[in-house]
Formats: sequence, C-alpha cells, structure tokens
Amino acid sequence: MTLLSGEPTIVTAGVDLFSEALTAQAAAVTPVAWQPPVGSEDALARVMADRRRLAANETALERMLAAGATLVDVRPASEVVGLSAGQFRHAGPPITWERASGPLRGALIGATLFEGLAATTEDATDLLSGGAVEWAPCHSDGGVGPMAGVVSPSMWVFVLRDEAHDRTSWCSLNEGLGKVLRYGAYGPEVIDRLRWMSSVLGPALQAAVREHGPVDVKGIIAQMVQMGDEGHNRNRAGTLMLLRDLMPAMIDAGVASSDVADVARFVGGNDHFFLNLVMPACKLQTAAASDIPGSTVVTTMARNGTDFGIQVSGTGDQWFTGPANTPQGLFLGSYGPDDANPDIGDSAITETAGIGGFAMASAPAIVRFVGGTVPDALRTSREMYGITTGENPAYALPILDFRGAATGIDVTKVVRSGVLPQINTGMAGRVAGVGQVGAGLVTPPMECFTAALDALGEAAPPVG
Amino acid sequence: MTLLSGEPTIVTAGVDLFSEALTAQAAAVTPVAWQPPVGSEDALARVMADRRRLAANETALERMLAAGATLVDVRPASEVVGLSAGQFRHAGPPITWERASGPLRGALIGATLFEGLAATTEDATDLLSGGAVEWAPCHSDGGVGPMAGVVSPSMWVFVLRDEAHDRTSWCSLNEGLGKVLRYGAYGPEVIDRLRWMSSVLGPALQAAVREHGPVDVKGIIAQMVQMGDEGHNRNRAGTLMLLRDLMPAMIDAGVASSDVADVARFVGGNDHFFLNLVMPACKLQTAAASDIPGSTVVTTMARNGTDFGIQVSGTGDQWFTGPANTPQGLFLGSYGPDDANPDIGDSAITETAGIGGFAMASAPAIVRFVGGTVPDALRTSREMYGITTGENPAYALPILDFRGAATGIDVTKVVRSGVLPQINTGMAGRVAGVGQVGAGLVTPPMECFTAALDALGEAAPPVG
Repeated sequence: MTLLSGEPTIVTAGVDLFSEALTAQAAAVTPVAWQPPVGSEDALARVMADRRRLAANETALERMLAAGATLVDVRPASEVVGLSAGQFRHAGPPITWERASGPLRGALIGATLFEGLAATTEDATDLLSGGAVEWAPCHSDGGVGPMAGVVSPSMWVFVLRDEAHDRTSWCSLNEGLGKVLRYGAYGPEVIDRLRWMSSVLGPALQAAVREHGPVDVKGIIAQMVQMGDEGHNRNRAGTLMLLRDLMPAMIDAGVASSDVADVARFVGGNDHFFLNLVMPACKLQTAAASDIPGSTVVTTMARNGTDFGIQVSGTGDQWFTGPANTPQGLFLGSYGPDDANPDIGDSAITETAGIGGFAMASAPAIVRFVGGTVPDALRTSREMYGITTGENPAYALPILDFRGAATGIDVTKVVRSGVLPQINTGMAGRVAGVGQVGAGLVTPPMECFTAALDALGEAAPPVG
Repeated sequence: MTLLSGEPTIVTAGVDLFSEALTAQAAAVTPVAWQPPVGSEDALARVMADRRRLAANETALERMLAAGATLVDVRPASEVVGLSAGQFRHAGPPITWERASGPLRGALIGATLFEGLAATTEDATDLLSGGAVEWAPCHSDGGVGPMAGVVSPSMWVFVLRDEAHDRTSWCSLNEGLGKVLRYGAYGPEVIDRLRWMSSVLGPALQAAVREHGPVDVKGIIAQMVQMGDEGHNRNRAGTLMLLRDLMPAMIDAGVASSDVADVARFVGGNDHFFLNLVMPACKLQTAAASDIPGSTVVTTMARNGTDFGIQVSGTGDQWFTGPANTPQGLFLGSYGPDDANPDIGDSAITETAGIGGFAMASAPAIVRFVGGTVPDALRTSREMYGITTGENPAYALPILDFRGAATGIDVTKVVRSGVLPQINTGMAGRVAGVGQVGAGLVTPPMECFTAALDALGEAAPPVG
C-alpha cells in the first residue's frame, strides 16, 4: 500500500538522456550504472544459479577477516622454502625462459650470479636458458615476491604466521629502490647489497624478532591506513613502525652497535621496506579463503612481467591468465612509456586483500608517486566496493568515515559490472639490468576473469 | 556591455528563504555567508582603512612562509633560557598564583619538588603562594610549553633555530600521556620520570643531535601532514621520523646501548613526543611575523588554564585576553565534562601557524581522539581559509588536493565573519594532581579578537 501512496521515486539505467531531461526539470533522479556483462552468458548463468555461491563467498570473507599475520622469524629461503642449489622462486604464474620478460630474466641472472652458480652474465644466461636451473612461482609455496620476486636459497625471508588458520607465508627482504634485483638489475652493486643483506641484515632482523617475539603485522597495517599508506606503493608509516618495534629489541639481543646503526639507516632510508611484510600478511589473508567449493572470490592476482594470473577460491590452484597490461604513470629521470615493462610482481596480493590500489582514498599523497588525482583516488576506492564481497573493519579508512577496506574481489561482480580491480604498482625497465623506471596504475586483463568464470561454470551444478 | 548581455547570476545573502525558493525552481543560486561584524564598528573602520594593513599582512605571511625550523641542540633550561633557582616558565599569558587553575598549580608544585626547593606539597604550596618563586610565560622568552607548560632550570629543552630570521625557540621534552607534570600531576612517578629525563633522555638526545647535525623539523612536519598527523593531537608519524633520524646517530655518538634502547622505547611509546618539536617550529614561524606596524595577523594564541591570550603582529608583545573556554570532546576512563579544566597550554601555537585544528582534514583519524566527525574535520579545515591571510605550500594537505595549510589568522576576518579559529587540544583535570582527563575541540573567546581590534584601531592613523 505504501508503494502506491508515497511519492514516486525515479530510477534510471542505461543512456543518460532520460535522467538528464528529468534533472533539468528539478526532479530527483537516481541513475544506476549498468552495462551488459562480459564473458559467457551461459557460464555466468550457471555460476549465479549455483546455490553454494552466497554461503561459500560469505565463508571466504569470514576467513579473510579472521586471518591474523604476525612476523615470527627471519631465516634463509633454503630453510623456510626448502630450496636447494639451483632452485629459485619468482613472481606471478609459471613461465618459461623463452617467454620471460627482461626484468624477470635480469633478476634470474642476478640470483644465479649471487648464488655463485655462474661468474659472468653470459654463463648465467646459458645456465638459465639451458634448463640447469629450475624455477616456480612463489605462490606455489605459499610465499610472495615483489616485482620479479626472484628468491634463491641464500636469500633471507620474513616468516609470517596466521595462527587462526595455522598457515605460514614468507617474502624476501626489501632491497630499496632504483637498481635492485627485483626490478631486474644485476650489476655488482646489486650483488654486493644482496651479500650484505644475507650476512648482516637478515641475521640482525632474526635476532631482533626472536628477542621481541611475534610482531603484529596486521596491527601495523591497520595503523598504516590511518597514516597515509595504502600498503602497496606507500609503506612509509609501516616501515617506521617496524623500526620502532625492532630497534630496541635488536640492541637488547646484543647485535653489534655498528650493525644496529647500519640496519637502522638501511631500513629507515627505504620507505618501501615494510611492503615485504604487507605482502605475506595479505597472502595469509587471501589464502585463508582458498579452496571453498562454489566460491567466486579471487585469492591471488600476480604477474610475471608477461602474463597476469589470478586464482579463485572455488577453483583451487588453477591459474587464469592473460597478457599483462603496461602501467600508466610517472617516470623516474628521463625514462618514458617506451622503457616500461608490462605489469610484474606478486604485490597485487595487496589489492587482492583490499588495500593497495583499493585503499588509495587513505593515501591521497600516493598520486604524487603513481599519477592520477586525489579525486580519482577517492572515486577508485569507492568503486571497488562494487566488485567485492564485503568490508574489512580491521583496515578502516578514515577519510571514508572509517569504512572498512573493500575485501574479497568477486569474479561475478567483475564480469557483470565490467569494473576491473585497480592496482597501483612500480614499473620495471623493459630491458634486463635497467631497474625501476617509474610507478603507475594498471588493471588486470578482463580475460583472467572471463576464463575464471568459465571454469567456475564448469564446476557448478547444472542449472534447472 | 557583457554584464547586461549575459545570463543573470543570482547571488543571495542573509536569510535562506529567497535562495531556497529559487532553488526549488531549479535556478542556480550562489548563497554568500554574511553576518554583522562583532566588536567596535569604529575600530573596525579605522583598521580596515589603515593603508599599511594589506602590505603589512603580506609581509607577515611572507615571513611566516620563509621561516625555517631546525633542531640544533638539546640542553638544560638553565643554559638555554637563563633560568636561575626559583625561576619558572609556564604556558599562556601572565597569571598570579591566586588566579591559577588546578593543573597549572599542580605543575608549579611538581617543578618546586623536582628542583628540591621543597620536600612536601604543603611546603611547595607555601613557597609558591608566598612569592618566593617567580614565573613568567614561556612566550616572553621566545619559547613554548604544552598544557601547563611549566619549565624549571634543571629540565632539558629542545633548541630550534630559524636561520632565515636568525631566531631561536625552545620547548620542554614530552613526558608522555596520563599522569604527567604538564597535565598538573606531581606524584612521585612524575618526579622520578622528570629525573630520568634530565639525567638520561636529555643528554642522550643532545649527543644524538650533535652527532647528526641539525634536524629539519619543518621538513618532518611537511611529511607528517601527508601521514595522518595534524601536529597538535596527532604526532605519530612525526615521532617515528624523529626516531628514524636520531637513533643511528645516538648509537654512533657512543651513548650506552641500554640507554639507547630505553630512549627508543620511551620515545617510540609516546605518539605525542614530536609535539614538543612541532610547537617551537610553529613559534619560529609565527614569531617571524611579529612587530610589523599595521599588521592584523595573530602571532600567538596561548592559554594558562584560566585566561586565553593572543598577541598580534601590529601590537607587539601586548596580550589580549578573555576567559578560556572548556573543550568539548572525548574523556579517558570514567572522567566526564565536570572533571575538565578550561583550555590550557601554548600548543595553540600550532593553529596559529596553520596546522593542528586547521589541518584536521589531513588527519581524519583525529576525530577518534578529539571527537567530532570526519566531514566536520574537512569542513573545519576549509572554513579556516576564510579567516587567514594565505596558504603555506610547505604544509600541503593531500586530501584538499595539496592545498597549503590556512596560514596567518587575520583579526579583521575573525571579527567580520564571526568565525573563530578551531583548536583541538588535550584536556587537563580541573583538580591539581589529576593529570589528563581527555581531548577535545575548543575555540578562543571572541573578546580576545575584539580587544585586539580596539588596540589595532587605536594604533591606526585617523580615518579621512
């Protein structure tokens, strides 16, 4: 009865002509964004009709929100990942040497030199192209690596635990910006820095963490997003909070004063240091949602510099890939768009977990690093609520009146709306050895999501 | 000609009836906020007609923007301020024992005990009420002190320099929150902490600053306002950046490892530590604008817990006072509005310099500490541009699309608009010895500004 007795409400969809005409007559109009879904209508119908879907996605969200993340140790990758000589890990979905991009090749060459498997670039290249070294995604062992993400046995890694789901993740130590291995550089200064990181930085951090006890990384991320960081390309406050927590413990643990001072300068001089703790914390969060039959929630977004790949809860470890896009953004020095490699790295795990590009509203200063405008950053964060399953109250964004971060990308919402997840990212040079050339904004290729939809459709019970 | 040939533009002032009627007819209306000015129309007419005013305020703004602020040393107040035994400094305008509020009395008692001038509260009170101790505003010696702001000869102070104007400022070291001297507490734990601060913290900071060289406090403030701090009640990022800069230098200077760890824990455990560096940096900024004949720019806002006082560029050191308001906000534990003392402290120097309450847009999480809402914080920051002379590009607020902080409160704009400067602040307990009871929002009494207007009017050349 109230439906007919009240004032009429005007809702419009599709072309703007009708809503504009009404607005010009001072009528209140609610326009609804709508466009035809992308991908197979058949698969979408099957997935939408899957009676398991809503409950499965609810479970996925609950597990993501319940996941903890504490830094419990710092150890060599040989011990944590079980890597032997000649075994590497890398970012993104699996890839061969032949299809590998410049920065991934550069990082593999650097790791080969660092491990002493070869003495020259040429020898390293021969080994790598000849099949004498094996590599696999970090994700296949529950870990993550930024940019090229190459991890070799002698590199040290952060070890993080989610006690709620009894799960471990890991990530390499951050080297800083510019000419660094993860951006594909492999010159002598890169290898020397890696040696210092394995001989001084790693052991000093290990001593500090063991003296301090578990460091609440999830708690620090919750603070970061109130301090202008979004956890992907701004990690300033996070890095400073880690320093605050670990430095006194490093002293108490008896680490030599000169090493403490060197470590404090190295970490304090690298605003991105904490990224390598945010990433495994996000991996623990999204991994908690994995392997739920019927769930359409994305658990991984990762790039190897050639392919963009996603994994989805309801389809387990299967990768759905498409060609990686090249970011648009700001360039360092005299570099320009032609120097940039397509999108690379496991760091899109931050967006998969609802921060990074999804939380740019909380980090308006990020636009000075990745491009765009402050209103764009606000609009993007708001738009991401349209393609996600829920909100994470642990990561509350003050400028959105403490609304929780948009969490749990839903494949069906992406294909129905045509809205792609917004990622912000560093840009590696296209040529092996160059290093970082800039930072910018990028989206996954839609075909990752339509391919995932097809697989979800095949796994769904028949309609009717 | 274009005036008459174009579309008419409708501008409304005063009551809303007219603009609402036009809006309902879908006409575009620009409403202008207007109300009759407060204070003496005669004085306002004289000041507005003063031909020196615009250029003087321009000069005041230029000097404020040009002022630097570097931390150059940490030393005892006896050396820096020249205090002898029995000489104290305090926050706000001058005040007698008889008119002093509970927290100011408590802090004076604590300083008397700390200096060994008395052994009991009763003896200290007798000394203070009997005229055996002398006190004057920190501002009278170019310094500042938060809350009660009591400084005695043995306390150590930060020493800051503005090389552009060859000026020095200073401020005490921050004790943390809760039961602390500046909030009027004077129990044994307060005095013990002050002893440790003079024997360990001060000398360790001195060694670090001398090893490091001048610390760019203005540069850190510029970063803070991009990291969720507004510099008055949020100083988290600033505190962390200070730790980052000073800890390696403290180690290099040879400070004992256990002292370095203790200092790192003390500073790292107190998000407000950097306030005591923001305040003298703001004092250097506003002092640079002092003593310009004809300028109506406010150079000081300060409170002693009884009176709110302001100083204005064109009238030099003269104080214009009114009864301090009591902040409205959030309370700690079981404390409530009846426990709160009226507004106290020199920390409103932050708002005088354009940050603090003026920059709340950059620190939306502050509303969880001082009350209010995020939209209020944004609105307040925008409103402050209406009562200030210009903007400070060094303190760019990202969420306002990097607009510079509203800088240089203009007495004429305050009395013409009726808009008062917005201050956010800690709240001291009304009773001596209690300590902090909360934090909130407050404005100065309008009579400070109307009294200043009268004095500016008297100093202005006759009209006509």
